[in-house]
Amino acid sequence: MVSLKLKAKLMDVVANMPVVILNAGDAVELGVYAGDRVLVQFDGHGIVASIDTTKKLVNRGELGIYREAQIHGVKNNATVSVSPTSRPKSIEYILKKMRGIELKKNEIWEIIGDVNNDRLSDGELGAFLTAVYIHGYTDFEVAEITRAMVDKGNSIDWGNTVVCDKHSIGGVPGNRTTPIVVSILAAAGLTVPKTSSRAITSPAGTADTIEVFCNVSLGIPEIKKIVKKTGACLVWGGALELAPVDDKFIHIEHALSIDPEGQVLASVMSKKKAVGSKYVLIDIPIGDEAKVDRMKAAEELAKKFKSLGKRLDMVVECAITDGSQPIGNGIGPVLEAIDIVDVFKGRGPKDLREKSLELAGMLLKMTKKGNKETAKKILDSGKAFEKFARITEAQGGSADKDFRNMLGKYRQNIICPRSGTILRIANEEIAKVSRTAGAPNDKGAGVYLHSKKGDIVKAGDVLFTIYAEKEYKLHDATEAAKKLKPIHIGDKDEMIEEVI
Amino acid sequence: MVSLKLKAKLMDVVANMPVVILNAGDAVELGVYAGDRVLVQFDGHGIVASIDTTKKLVNRGELGIYREAQIHGVKNNATVSVSPTSRPKSIEYILKKMRGIELKKNEIWEIIGDVNNDRLSDGELGAFLTAVYIHGYTDFEVAEITRAMVDKGNSIDWGNTVVCDKHSIGGVPGNRTTPIVVSILAAAGLTVPKTSSRAITSPAGTADTIEVFCNVSLGIPEIKKIVKKTGACLVWGGALELAPVDDKFIHIEHALSIDPEGQVLASVMSKKKAVGSKYVLIDIPIGDEAKVDRMKAAEELAKKFKSLGKRLDMVVECAITDGSQPIGNGIGPVLEAIDIVDVFKGRGPKDLREKSLELAGMLLKMTKKGNKETAKKILDSGKAFEKFARITEAQGGSADKDFRNMLGKYRQNIICPRSGTILRIANEEIAKVSRTAGAPNDKGAGVYLHSKKGDIVKAGDVLFTIYAEKEYKLHDATEAAKKLKPIHIGDKDEMIEEVI
Repeated sequence: MVSLKLKAKLMDVVANMPVVILNAGDAVELGVYAGDRVLVQFDGHGIVASIDTTKKLVNRGELGIYREAQIHGVKNNATVSVSPTSRPKSIEYILKKMRGIELKKNEIWEIIGDVNNDRLSDGELGAFLTAVYIHGYTDFEVAEITRAMVDKGNSIDWGNTVVCDKHSIGGVPGNRTTPIVVSILAAAGLTVPKTSSRAITSPAGTADTIEVFCNVSLGIPEIKKIVKKTGACLVWGGALELAPVDDKFIHIEHALSIDPEGQVLASVMSKKKAVGSKYVLIDIPIGDEAKVDRMKAAEELAKKFKSLGKRLDMVVECAITDGSQPIGNGIGPVLEAIDIVDVFKGRGPKDLREKSLELAGMLLKMTKKGNKETAKKILDSGKAFEKFARITEAQGGSADKDFRNMLGKYRQNIICPRSGTILRIANEEIAKVSRTAGAPNDKGAGVYLHSKKGDIVKAGDVLFTIYAEKEYKLHDATEAAKKLKPIHIGDKDEMIEEVI
Repeated sequence: MVSLKLKAKLMDVVANMPVVILNAGDAVELGVYAGDRVLVQFDGHGIVASIDTTKKLVNRGELGIYREAQIHGVKNNATVSVSPTSRPKSIEYILKKMRGIELKKNEIWEIIGDVNNDRLSDGELGAFLTAVYIHGYTDFEVAEITRAMVDKGNSIDWGNTVVCDKHSIGGVPGNRTTPIVVSILAAAGLTVPKTSSRAITSPAGTADTIEVFCNVSLGIPEIKKIVKKTGACLVWGGALELAPVDDKFIHIEHALSIDPEGQVLASVMSKKKAVGSKYVLIDIPIGDEAKVDRMKAAEELAKKFKSLGKRLDMVVECAITDGSQPIGNGIGPVLEAIDIVDVFKGRGPKDLREKSLELAGMLLKMTKKGNKETAKKILDSGKAFEKFARITEAQGGSADKDFRNMLGKYRQNIICPRSGTILRIANEEIAKVSRTAGAPNDKGAGVYLHSKKGDIVKAGDVLFTIYAEKEYKLHDATEAAKKLKPIHIGDKDEMIEEVI
């Protein structure tokens, strides 16, 4: 195999993948072209990088190295060795999956290993995920994928502690039960190292909302300290390198707008496994507006989660919940924070309270610490809020802020055009209006629903209020609301819904 | 939509895709991250590029533009506008194909348009090709894909002339009938604007071999002139931008080692259509060693080629030929050139002569200009060689060179270890030995077969000779030959083959 010794020239460029830049003359000598991959070696370590070529930016004998390709310890003018890479073996296994054949354990680990080491191109990842989307995973495959993904990232071990966790498969705006459930469980003596995501396409992820109260970007040592102190944490999982391979899959899945079911199972469970959870409750909202639209599909998904849990030596239960409209009244980080605190204080949206108690009750049952009644007592006694206050303080914030003052200054009421009953609130359209208003990046932006499904409304009532931090975003969101008409009003008994 | 006006800073970097480099501060302002795509606009033209970010290499207010993203006419310090791109609509259609649903005309054209404008990422292309690999194309789809691919590239119109062409689906080393067939047809008065490819994984493409005689990298105006003068040309198709979208597909297909059948059909026929061919003969070699291993599969493929031809208003016939061993004796550009000239001069490998006459005869029949007998007369009269000499001269070369002197100096005979009959010559292994020896980049490298299947050999006979231009390549190729054992010898009537 040809290889060249080149002088490293570290470059301050981020490309979202490992890239090196070769002088065109050296590329010819190596027999490689722009877009090909090479193995770069330094001090016993190697990385596979994609190459760009140049005639001027980098001289012959030099290798420009972008950020992601800079091997630990490499300095300017260090000698690195560059050689064409052989074709990764996992491409054969991807081809096997494309043909619909079940992969063996070593084949799955090879693929995950290559993804982890950036040895597969985006085209190859796209092909793999498409094959998984079309053919699905077998139970065996999804368990191995999960194990392999956990293996490539950080893990936390809590010893013999009873560690529990919840997860919602998402798709329902305002569904912010997590801080309430976690606080109840921690108050009941359970350990809940909760990691959450930020929004990608929704108006707020749990991490975005918790950030209204406190810092969520914490490292693993800090998480351990906080959980030891308070029994729980509420942090962003994105930077913890728990199953980091999953993030590479998600990047491509997101671009393609696909979430192959098996990959979703592996994604959720790998993160729970890595964080050391033993008892896991999965919230599966169903409804025309949710990700899962029928009971049968929800039950099948629940079965798969439980079966995967068993293979991973975890106890998994699923709650199939109402996903036909948003939960709570506020949608957007600050608006959701207000709903959460209201529930802690015994006020606030009933649906958010009820759902939180239901989920907490199930986890108490699974861990033999009680039931929904226990959860209710803990919430109503103020112990849950006290726990929440301690967690947010430990994370450098507070449960008690002047949230109303943090709301966007620019506001627009959307008025009901006729009397009738609210027949439908479209989750996706409400989410779009909230995002157009600026959520989740503008924390005070979003939508507040004054009425929910089944409520009787009169012409002239305020249906919802849009909050924005910037005037032009309020304008755009108002236009979006007029166009998308997210709330449908009709007569209670009518079959054909009328669109406002 | 947010957009920034930035100062162009043209960069001498080739990345095999359009890339621009933004200062990290400007990236935050645009709300984009490394790896995202942006629309770059200048003087009424736009290009979608992937972004890298930097803190130093490019200042705020500047935009580093790699070669592939440099819009025609843009100069250093020109003002360009950059904005985040909306999601291409074709992603929805890719998803539809993933679900196995037939695409509509406008959906296919949208996908091909987006591929052409580099609006789809490699991940998205990988997903599309995987979906096509798994679900296949319908007849309707493959015809529309072909039409759309032709539409995005250059085309040549020859008016009312009878234009014909041949194509081999490949996989058989030494199968260099093209120059012979083209010369016969042109000598018979037909117009044959032949474009060929270079080798990707084989020891020589037709273009690599023709390059031994003359220049093959010609532009469309030159091709027109040469064809007008001689009736034919023998050029490399790679730089002509005939169906350039196909090259983007092939790049990903090659990385994945897949060639979805429908995509192969569209690829071949789009190039024939673009170059203005009306009568097309497809050579489909079959055999254990070829791309198609059974008669039934070959017949099905032939049916698809013919049906696609009909939809494209072309006359297509297929020749199902013997692909069980290499054609001719030489494998590698110069060695093949020697075989070709020998056939023109009435000597040379019989199988190469017979196959060339067969194919030329079929095309003469299709165009009502004669048959195999006509082809034989033209070849044996020396008219075909005369034509070939005129074509190669018009392309700046000659049909008469001291080819033997162009062969690699380093040579190794591979000796027959036992007496018996040659039962099998493994195409893929012979190709590997030839490539290891340096073909096709080292024109004089390759393998010369002294015997073919069915020949009786004695211990000590030379089975084949390896030629190389570099000593270490001869060494590596000899090692490869010993390891791969490409020729199998046994007793004529034995069932179990013995490996030498």
